[in-house]
Amino acid sequence: MDRKVFTLFSFVEQMQPKYIERLRTFVSIPSISEQQDHRLDVVKALRWIAYKLKKIGADVRFRRIGKEIIYTGDHIPLTATDELELPDVVVGSLGSDVTKRTLLIYGHVDVKPVHESEHWSHDPFDMQVRGEYLCGRGVTDDKGPLLGWINAIEAFQKTKIQLPINFKFVIEGMEEVGSEGLHELLNELSLSFFKNVDHVAISDNYWLGQNKPCLTYGLRGVIYFYITVEGSDRVLHSGCHGGAVAEPLSDLISLLAALNDSQGRPMVPDIYEDIEEIDSEEIARFSRLDFQPQVYKANIAAPGLQSYDKVDLLRRRWCLPSISIHGIEHSFDKPGAPTLICKKVMGKFSVRVVPAQPPKKVAQKVKNYLEQLHKLRGSPNKLDIKIFRDGRPFLSDHTTVNYQAASRAIIRVWQQEPDLTRDGAAMPVAIALEESTRKDVVLIPMGQSLDFQHEGNERLAIRNYLNGIKVFAMYFFELAAAEREDSEEEAARQNKREKWRLKMV
Amino acid sequence: MDRKVFTLFSFVEQMQPKYIERLRTFVSIPSISEQQDHRLDVVKALRWIAYKLKKIGADVRFRRIGKEIIYTGDHIPLTATDELELPDVVVGSLGSDVTKRTLLIYGHVDVKPVHESEHWSHDPFDMQVRGEYLCGRGVTDDKGPLLGWINAIEAFQKTKIQLPINFKFVIEGMEEVGSEGLHELLNELSLSFFKNVDHVAISDNYWLGQNKPCLTYGLRGVIYFYITVEGSDRVLHSGCHGGAVAEPLSDLISLLAALNDSQGRPMVPDIYEDIEEIDSEEIARFSRLDFQPQVYKANIAAPGLQSYDKVDLLRRRWCLPSISIHGIEHSFDKPGAPTLICKKVMGKFSVRVVPAQPPKKVAQKVKNYLEQLHKLRGSPNKLDIKIFRDGRPFLSDHTTVNYQAASRAIIRVWQQEPDLTRDGAAMPVAIALEESTRKDVVLIPMGQSLDFQHEGNERLAIRNYLNGIKVFAMYFFELAAAEREDSEEEAARQNKREKWRLKMV
Repeated sequence: MDRKVFTLFSFVEQMQPKYIERLRTFVSIPSISEQQDHRLDVVKALRWIAYKLKKIGADVRFRRIGKEIIYTGDHIPLTATDELELPDVVVGSLGSDVTKRTLLIYGHVDVKPVHESEHWSHDPFDMQVRGEYLCGRGVTDDKGPLLGWINAIEAFQKTKIQLPINFKFVIEGMEEVGSEGLHELLNELSLSFFKNVDHVAISDNYWLGQNKPCLTYGLRGVIYFYITVEGSDRVLHSGCHGGAVAEPLSDLISLLAALNDSQGRPMVPDIYEDIEEIDSEEIARFSRLDFQPQVYKANIAAPGLQSYDKVDLLRRRWCLPSISIHGIEHSFDKPGAPTLICKKVMGKFSVRVVPAQPPKKVAQKVKNYLEQLHKLRGSPNKLDIKIFRDGRPFLSDHTTVNYQAASRAIIRVWQQEPDLTRDGAAMPVAIALEESTRKDVVLIPMGQSLDFQHEGNERLAIRNYLNGIKVFAMYFFELAAAEREDSEEEAARQNKREKWRLKMV
Repeated sequence: MDRKVFTLFSFVEQMQPKYIERLRTFVSIPSISEQQDHRLDVVKALRWIAYKLKKIGADVRFRRIGKEIIYTGDHIPLTATDELELPDVVVGSLGSDVTKRTLLIYGHVDVKPVHESEHWSHDPFDMQVRGEYLCGRGVTDDKGPLLGWINAIEAFQKTKIQLPINFKFVIEGMEEVGSEGLHELLNELSLSFFKNVDHVAISDNYWLGQNKPCLTYGLRGVIYFYITVEGSDRVLHSGCHGGAVAEPLSDLISLLAALNDSQGRPMVPDIYEDIEEIDSEEIARFSRLDFQPQVYKANIAAPGLQSYDKVDLLRRRWCLPSISIHGIEHSFDKPGAPTLICKKVMGKFSVRVVPAQPPKKVAQKVKNYLEQLHKLRGSPNKLDIKIFRDGRPFLSDHTTVNYQAASRAIIRVWQQEPDLTRDGAAMPVAIALEESTRKDVVLIPMGQSLDFQHEGNERLAIRNYLNGIKVFAMYFFELAAAEREDSEEEAARQNKREKWRLKMV
């Protein structure tokens, strides 16, 4: 095998300019799923990636996933002729050798919008090489990693080394807005397309730091809220009417203020219910991780942290719920000093849930709490609460064949054992894929913690991009070489997992 | 005199189409003082009104009032050649007959911006006649009333009836943003230009209802706050970092939520200090006013009121401080569901103060309170509080010659005695004019309570515009006919007023 590894690694090194060029093309498609006017760019990016799969010989299908429902209850038109449809999901397969294992790879082509406050140093969709980094929207989330899988498979083909496993692909374009419509498709695929899948891998998160590779086995879930308070039908002059009416913005602010205590801990009653306690073994592991609160604080340019204790800080990020308020719509938010009373305002916040909290149950607790507070306040203004994207958290078994293979692949490339980490961000597709394949899912991050995903100047280290491709290639070998799990053992493990997942429904 | 009155009234009636056309021209200048890109329109409106004054024979001067300081500490450029200057104030005088009294008239040419949420049924700067109303930005605040004074004076001239009094004028273009720079000019004018002024009149507020004319003797003051909370130098992903950092928007919201109690009453410690108690005579007068809480509720299209007791409700609007939160800048306020932590957010609110609360003292209380709360919260984020427009409240003596003359003028035109009212809105120029002239100031509203000043579809009833012009003409006669106050009596009254005003410095 070592001869093959040398050949592959040499090929990957030699392909660096081409790999960068490919990513530049992929990044140049502004496939922002959150913005309706970019919906056709999402479709374009899906077609682009489908073509890449075709080129490595995959059988590729576009699967319809139905109509999109946005919070107002309306549908988003897609094109003049094909309106109201969500972008298709790209489903592919490569290889059907029954003697080989089959790996299911998931990825997404859509990216987050670019906000004014992000201060990009260049056009986010014109990828630039800045020192040792590639910079552009989507390079690390998730265009670089997704392209990495294809580059790795292509490397086997171009070097005429037989692919050691079969592949299946599920690639979507609506991940950044909650993978709408995907779950129904996954359920459908579970009966047929997923039948011979042995393992699942996702590369769509990040290392804990800048230097040490990681494997990730846990994720928080997320629930998104839009809460609206509506008062008078008119905008009122605050001089003439201030003191006489209940002001919608004051009502909204009082509700939002009641979400967290002064230390940023959620105050919703029973919000700490159903949390899976972390055991002493995991705590010990946390304390050994390559992570320093002071370095973290400097990296995120924060004036302070809610905790400087390493384990406590990681628990807050990974194992405890949190609530972030993102914005208020329809207040007088333009420059100027209006003396008006808002008539209808909307607050946006998200709740992070942790294993094994059922998102629907938590969402209901938050809703009940806010409704009760509003009632107690006695305001005549109307409160409306919309909940969407109830994404389940994820906690995998990191001792499986799949995790071991990924770990060995990382050791071969990076010459060090990966840290076993969780992540605070949500990826509802992880648990959905485990559910629909009944196989375990490994998260193999490609980028570093400071890749600024979802932020300004998003980047991916060239070294991480190249080594990531090598890790994927090694992972294929390691999976093929790993001992097959005893079928009874596997069934027992899967039943245990299923029971765990059922807690969160 | 009745012959003269008949002639004047007939002339005014006959001029209706011309008066409307004049107002339409005035309204067509979008003289929005709050928006920098309309600053030259403010200058244009000032020139337009100066020309109108010239045409009635007034001696007109433009007075410089210095540079504008906005909250960021920057200056607003006005034109390329004349940058950084505030729009001039128009100062005029007409008549110098030493046997006649001199009336000082104040007005402003600037208007409030048009906000999207106001839902105008037409271009706000293209004044339309809608049934019995004139509709457009500024028709009632304050272009209609200001033009009304000039129309009234012109009526005397065109009908060849001798003007019974002399006039002075002070007309500004920055009223809606706090009359910046005006006070210094008024101080300067007090030593010379204002020397022979006998009375002051302002028509820049509204009736209490729709049917009964009013004279207004009291106003609340206003203080405006910009409070900024600044956290990390980066926008952070709430999944990765939520729970680990103190979020600026949460800090801001907790501060804003602490301003009012659940019933909309300010909670700032000692904020009810220095309030002049209203006496039983005034309470009795309130209870007799033409005002019904249920009608008021319907008029402002509110789902409810903080009180349904007539006197209590009027006290809340006129005699008690209130705090309105107007908006939050720099949060994620565009459509969409971002999962980001804001890095720097700014909250805007205003505090209404009442006679005899010193605005500077109240502002300091609010500032201390917020700073203390933020300190107690222990957030590492930086709080910055900017205070501006500390406008003093106003409470006049409504028994003076000036008020009596205005009252008699109203009776002649409307055939009923005016209600004596206060107003919740601020007009810091009222007390400043009293101070700089040492004469009493009467507020003679032209429009009705439902004129939607500062709101969508601002309007002025044609009947109020025409009758307002007649009231002004009658007021000139009544002032001329009123008995001169004994100089000792006047000095005593003025000393009492000065003592009262000094309380608020």
